[in-house]
Amino acid sequence: MRFLMLEGNQLILALIAFVTGIVSLVAAGLFLASVLKEDMGTPRMVELSNAIFEGAMAFLNRQYKSLAPIVIIIFIALFFIPKDLFAHGGDTSKISIFALPVSYLVGAVASAIAGYAGMLSTTKSNARTTHAARTSLNKALSVAFRGGAVMGLSVAGLGLAGVAGLYIVFGNPVVINSFAFGASAVALFARIGGGIYTKAADVGADLVGKVEAGIPEDDPRNPAVIADNVGDNVGDTAGMGADLFESFAATTIAAMLIGAAIFSPELQFAGIIFPLLIGAAGNIASIVSTAVVRLGDEGGDPQAALNKGLWATNFLTAVAGWFIAQYLFGDMALGIFIGILAGLITNVAIGQITEYYTSYHKKPSQEIADASLTGPATNIIKGLAVGLRSTAAPIVVICAAIFVSYEAAEAYAAKGLGIYGIAMAAMGMLATSGMVVAIDSFGPVADNAGGIAEMAELGPEVRKNTDKLDAVGNTTAAVAKGFAIGSAALTALALFTAYKMSANLDTIDLLQPTVIIGLFIGATIPFVVASQAMDAVGRAAFEMIAEVRRQFREIPGIMEGTGKPDYAACVDISTKAAIKEMIAPGLVAILTPIVVGFVFGPEALGATLAGATAAGVLVAIFMSNAGGAWDNAKKYIETGIHGGKGTEAHKAAVVGDTVGDPFKDTAGPAMNPLIKVMGTISLIIAPLVAKWSFFA
Amino acid sequence: MRFLMLEGNQLILALIAFVTGIVSLVAAGLFLASVLKEDMGTPRMVELSNAIFEGAMAFLNRQYKSLAPIVIIIFIALFFIPKDLFAHGGDTSKISIFALPVSYLVGAVASAIAGYAGMLSTTKSNARTTHAARTSLNKALSVAFRGGAVMGLSVAGLGLAGVAGLYIVFGNPVVINSFAFGASAVALFARIGGGIYTKAADVGADLVGKVEAGIPEDDPRNPAVIADNVGDNVGDTAGMGADLFESFAATTIAAMLIGAAIFSPELQFAGIIFPLLIGAAGNIASIVSTAVVRLGDEGGDPQAALNKGLWATNFLTAVAGWFIAQYLFGDMALGIFIGILAGLITNVAIGQITEYYTSYHKKPSQEIADASLTGPATNIIKGLAVGLRSTAAPIVVICAAIFVSYEAAEAYAAKGLGIYGIAMAAMGMLATSGMVVAIDSFGPVADNAGGIAEMAELGPEVRKNTDKLDAVGNTTAAVAKGFAIGSAALTALALFTAYKMSANLDTIDLLQPTVIIGLFIGATIPFVVASQAMDAVGRAAFEMIAEVRRQFREIPGIMEGTGKPDYAACVDISTKAAIKEMIAPGLVAILTPIVVGFVFGPEALGATLAGATAAGVLVAIFMSNAGGAWDNAKKYIETGIHGGKGTEAHKAAVVGDTVGDPFKDTAGPAMNPLIKVMGTISLIIAPLVAKWSFFA
Repeated sequence: MRFLMLEGNQLILALIAFVTGIVSLVAAGLFLASVLKEDMGTPRMVELSNAIFEGAMAFLNRQYKSLAPIVIIIFIALFFIPKDLFAHGGDTSKISIFALPVSYLVGAVASAIAGYAGMLSTTKSNARTTHAARTSLNKALSVAFRGGAVMGLSVAGLGLAGVAGLYIVFGNPVVINSFAFGASAVALFARIGGGIYTKAADVGADLVGKVEAGIPEDDPRNPAVIADNVGDNVGDTAGMGADLFESFAATTIAAMLIGAAIFSPELQFAGIIFPLLIGAAGNIASIVSTAVVRLGDEGGDPQAALNKGLWATNFLTAVAGWFIAQYLFGDMALGIFIGILAGLITNVAIGQITEYYTSYHKKPSQEIADASLTGPATNIIKGLAVGLRSTAAPIVVICAAIFVSYEAAEAYAAKGLGIYGIAMAAMGMLATSGMVVAIDSFGPVADNAGGIAEMAELGPEVRKNTDKLDAVGNTTAAVAKGFAIGSAALTALALFTAYKMSANLDTIDLLQPTVIIGLFIGATIPFVVASQAMDAVGRAAFEMIAEVRRQFREIPGIMEGTGKPDYAACVDISTKAAIKEMIAPGLVAILTPIVVGFVFGPEALGATLAGATAAGVLVAIFMSNAGGAWDNAKKYIETGIHGGKGTEAHKAAVVGDTVGDPFKDTAGPAMNPLIKVMGTISLIIAPLVAKWSFFA
Repeated sequence: MRFLMLEGNQLILALIAFVTGIVSLVAAGLFLASVLKEDMGTPRMVELSNAIFEGAMAFLNRQYKSLAPIVIIIFIALFFIPKDLFAHGGDTSKISIFALPVSYLVGAVASAIAGYAGMLSTTKSNARTTHAARTSLNKALSVAFRGGAVMGLSVAGLGLAGVAGLYIVFGNPVVINSFAFGASAVALFARIGGGIYTKAADVGADLVGKVEAGIPEDDPRNPAVIADNVGDNVGDTAGMGADLFESFAATTIAAMLIGAAIFSPELQFAGIIFPLLIGAAGNIASIVSTAVVRLGDEGGDPQAALNKGLWATNFLTAVAGWFIAQYLFGDMALGIFIGILAGLITNVAIGQITEYYTSYHKKPSQEIADASLTGPATNIIKGLAVGLRSTAAPIVVICAAIFVSYEAAEAYAAKGLGIYGIAMAAMGMLATSGMVVAIDSFGPVADNAGGIAEMAELGPEVRKNTDKLDAVGNTTAAVAKGFAIGSAALTALALFTAYKMSANLDTIDLLQPTVIIGLFIGATIPFVVASQAMDAVGRAAFEMIAEVRRQFREIPGIMEGTGKPDYAACVDISTKAAIKEMIAPGLVAILTPIVVGFVFGPEALGATLAGATAAGVLVAIFMSNAGGAWDNAKKYIETGIHGGKGTEAHKAAVVGDTVGDPFKDTAGPAMNPLIKVMGTISLIIAPLVAKWSFFA
C-alpha cells in the first residue's frame, strides 16, 4: 500500500467530505435551536420533561464515566502496537505514532458526543411535542421529527467529519481504523447498557404498576414511570444512534482500506475517497429530505410523511452516487454504482420484510394472536416459530446483495474489484443513516410525549394525537431495527474483508481444524451474549419490582396521589444495573477475538468473525422479529380481536409481549455491536496475530 | 485412491467386523426372546399393551409406506450417476453399477428394520415391565433394560454388519457411501415425524385431559392416552434409534473414506478397516456390559446400574481400541488411539454437562423454578437464557476433541493424518452406541410401564416402582440427547472432510463471496427447520385437542368410565399429521445442498455444510437443554418447592414445560439428522457438483 500525502485535488475532495460532515452538524444545531424555541407547556409538563432529561443525563454520565478507564487503557495500549506492522512494507517514517491511539480516542469521544446530542435533543423535544399536540397533529409531528433529526444528523455528521478529518490529518486509512474500534467499544456498551436499562424499567413499571396495582401505563403514581420514559431514550435513541454511528464509521473505513488495497495506483485514491463522498451525498440527501417530512393537511398520515423522507433520501443518494461514480471511475462507474444501488434496495427490502413479520395487519402477528386463544404456551411457541422463520427472507436479501454487488463490480468495473463492490453495498445502505436515525429517534420522542400527556393529565384529544404518533413510532422502530441488523451484517463483512488484508491472509480454509474450531466458537458467542443480556434484564427487573413494591407499601398516600413517589430511586436502580450488567457481555465480545487470535492464529480468528456474523445476524433477526410480532399480537387483541383486553387470550398475549421485550430491545440489538466490535478489534490486532500466535 | 480387492488377511478382518455385527443381532434376538417369555399380567394389561403395539406398528407402516416412493426414486436416480466420477482416476471397470443404488437401499431398509425391531421390542416390554414391577424393582429394571437392549444392539449390529458387508461385496468405501445417505433419509423423516407424533399426542392429551377435564395423566378415560404412549416409543425409540444408526453408519463410512485417501499404500487398508474394528469392539463391549446392568439388592439405584453399563462399555472399548490400534498401526498407534479416547471422553463430558443444565438438583433448573414465582413470562425468559448459555460448554468440549485428536494424530501418528484423528474421535464416541441406545430405549419402556400401571388400575406400590424407573428414564433420555447431538456434530465434521475429498477441493476459502453466501444459507436452515417443526406440532396438537374435546362431548358415559373412548381416532390423527408435516422440513434439508451446490459450486456447498453444522448443533443444544430444564423445573416445584402443585408458580412452570416439549422432543432432535443428511447428500453429489455448477 502506498502512503498518501493529500494535496491538490485529493485534499479538496477529502475536505468536501469533511465540510459536509460539519454542515450536517450545523443543520443538527439549527434543528435543535428550532426545537428549543417551542413552548414546553404547563409547569407540570416542564417538571416531568426535566425529570426525564435529568435521568437520561445521569445515565449517560455514569455510563461514560464507567467506560472512561477502559477507553483510556486501550488508548495507552495502542501506543505500543509497533507501527511497522501497519506499514505493509511501506515507509514507516510517515506513520505518526499518534495515529492509532488518537483515532481511537476521537472515535470513542465522537460516539459519546453523538449520544449526548441525541439525548439532549429527544428529551428536550418530548414535552414540546406534547404541547404542540394540544393544537395540531401536524405541529406535533414536526417537533418530534425535528427532535429526532438532531440525533440523526449528529450521528451522520460526526461519522463523516470524523473519518474525513482523521484521513486528512494522518493521510492513510490503515492507521485510522482504530476510529471504528473506538466507536465500536462505546456502541457495544451503549447498546447493552441501554437495552438493560430500558427493559428493567419497563418490566418493573408494568408488572407492579399495571398488573399488581392496576394503574394505567405512564401513571404518575408509579415510581418507575420516569425511569421507564428515560429508558425509551436510552434504548432507542442513544443505543440505536451509537449502533449506526459505529456501522457508518466501520463501513466507511473498511471500504477505504479495501479501496486502498485493491485498486491500481492511478485509481487508488478514487477507491479511498469514494466511500467518503457517498457518505457525504447521503448526508446532504438526508438534510434536504427533511423538508418533505410534513403532513399535507391535518388528516394526513404521519407514517406516509416519514416514508416520503426515507424514499427521498434513498433516491437523492442514488442519483448523487451515480454522478460521483462517473466522476471518479469513468468507464468503471456502472460496476461500482450497482453495489451502491444494491445497498439502497437492501434498505427497502429489509424494511418491508420486517414490517411483514411484525405488523399486526399481516399474517404472522395475527397467527400469534390466534395462538393466544389456547394460552400462553401456544402463544410463545408460535412467536418463537415466527421469529425463527423470519430469518430466511432477510438472509436471502443480504446474500443477493453480496452476490450482485460482487459480480457487478467484477463484470462492469474490473476483475478483482468484486469485494469493493460488496463494501459499496454496505456503504449505500449506511449513507442514508442520517435519515434512518432521525426517523428512529422520532419514536422515543413520540412515546415520551404520550407519557407526559398522561402524567400531566391532559385531555383525551391530546392523547389521541400523541397515540397516533406513538403507533407510527413503533413501526419505524421495528423497521430501523431491521436496518440496523442488515447494515451490521454488511459492515461485519466489510470488516472481515479488511481484516483479511490487514492480516495478510490469502485464504481462510474451512478445511483446517483450527478454522472449524474458530467458526464454532464464533457462532457460539451470540448465543452466550444473548443469554447474558436476558439474564441481566431479569435480575435488574427483579430489583426494580422490589423497589416499586416497597414504595407502594411505605410511602403514605402514594396511591391517592397525595404522597410523591421517589422517581430518582428507580432511575438509580436502572442506571446501576445497566452499568454493572454491561461489563460481562462486553468482555466476552472483546476478549474472544483476542484469545482466539493469539491462541489459534489469524485464519481461526477470521472464521470466528464469520461464525459470529452468521449466528449473530440470525439471532438478531430471530429475536427482534419475534419480539415485534409478540408486541403487535398483543396490540391486535387490544383492538378487540378475540374479545380484547381482559380476556384469557389477552393475558396470554401479555406473556408473549413480556418475553419479547428483552428479545427485541436488549438481546437482539446487542448482536449488532457484538459482531462489529469483534470485527473492529480483530482489524486492530490483525498484524499482531499474523506475527505471533500460539498454535498457528 | 486404489481399489481394493479383499482377500486373505484383509478379507478375514472385514469378516470379523461383519460377523460381530451379526453376533449383535443374534444377541438382540436372544434378549427379545427372553423378554417375550415374561408374563404380561392381567387381561387389561395385555389389551393396553396390544393397543400401544398396534398404534406403533400402524405409524411405522404408514411412515415407511409414505417414504417408499421417495426411497425408490432416489434409488433409481443413483443408477444415473456416472461411475467414472467416483473412480478418482482409478479403474472404473472394477466399480459395480449397482454399488451406489444398492448400498443406498440397504441403508434405508436397514434403518427401517432397526426401527421395527426396536418398536416391537419396546412395545412388547412395557406391560411385562409393569407386571415385573408388581413383584420387584430389580426384576422390572431387568425387563425394561432388556427391552431397550434389543433396540440398542439392533442399531449397532445392523450398522456394523451393513457397512462391513457392503464393503466386502463392493470392495471400496467410496461406492458404499450411499449406505449412509439411505440411513440419513430415513432418520430425517423418522426423527421429524416421530417428534411431531409424540408431541401432538402429548400436548393434546395434557391440555384437554389434565387441564380442562381434570383427570390425571395416563387416565384410560382420555381418548389420546394410547396415542400419547405410542408417541413415547415413536419419538424416543424409533427416532433416537434411527438418528444414532445414521450417525454410526455415516461416521464409519466417512472415516473409511478418509482412511483410504490419506494413508500411504501400505497402511491404506489399516486406515479403512480400523473404523470397522473399533465399531466391532464397541459392539462386543456393549453386549458384555449388559451383564453389569443389575441392582445389587432391592434398595439399589437403577440409575447407578445403568451408569455402570455405560462406564463398562467405554472402558472395554478403550482397552480393545488400544490393542487394535497397536495391531494395525504399530508405532503410530498412540496418535490414532488418542482420537478414540477423545471421543470416549467427549461422551462422558457431554453427558455430565447435559445433566448439569437439565437436572433439578442443579442450579440452572432451580433458577427457572425460582423465576416461575413471578409468572410464566419470567419462567420463559429464564429458560431461554439457560438454554442459550448451555451451548458454550459442549462446544468447548467438541472443539477440544477436534483439536486434541487432530494434533495427536499429527504429532504421534504422522504428519497429514490429523483429519483421520478427528474421524477417530467421532468413531470412539459412536462405537458405544449399542449401549447408549439400549439405555435410551429403556426410557419409553419405563414410561409406558407406568402408563399401563395407571390405566390398568394397579396398586400404588406398583406405580411407585415404575415411577422410580421412569424418573431414571428421564435422565437417561436427556443424556442420550446430549450424546446424539455431540455425535452428530462429529459425524457432520467427518462427512465434511470426506466431502472435501470427494469433491476434490484443496481449500474452501471463506474469503470468497459465494462461500460466505453458502455459510449464511447453511446457518439459516436450522432456524427454518426448527420453525417448521414447532409450527407442525402446533397444528397437529390443535387437531388432537379438537378430537379429544369432541369425544368428551359426544361419547356418552366416557367420563364415568362406562363409555369407551375411541383411542384409534387419536392415534390416526397423530399418525396422519406426522406423515404430512414431515415432508416440508425434509425437503428443505434435502434440496438445500442440491440447490446451493449446483448454483454456487462445491466450495459454497462445503460452507453450507459448515454453517448448518455450527448453527444446527447450537440450536439443538439450546432447545434440548432449555426443554429439559423447563421440564425438571416443573418437576422440582412438584416436589413441594415454592408451594408445589396448584400454585401460581406451578402454573407458570407448566407453561415453560409445554413450550419445552416441542423444543426438546421435536425441533431440537430434528437438528441431528438435518445436519447429517445435508452431509450425506453432499457427499453423494460432490463429484457432480465439482464438475457442473452454474456460477462456479
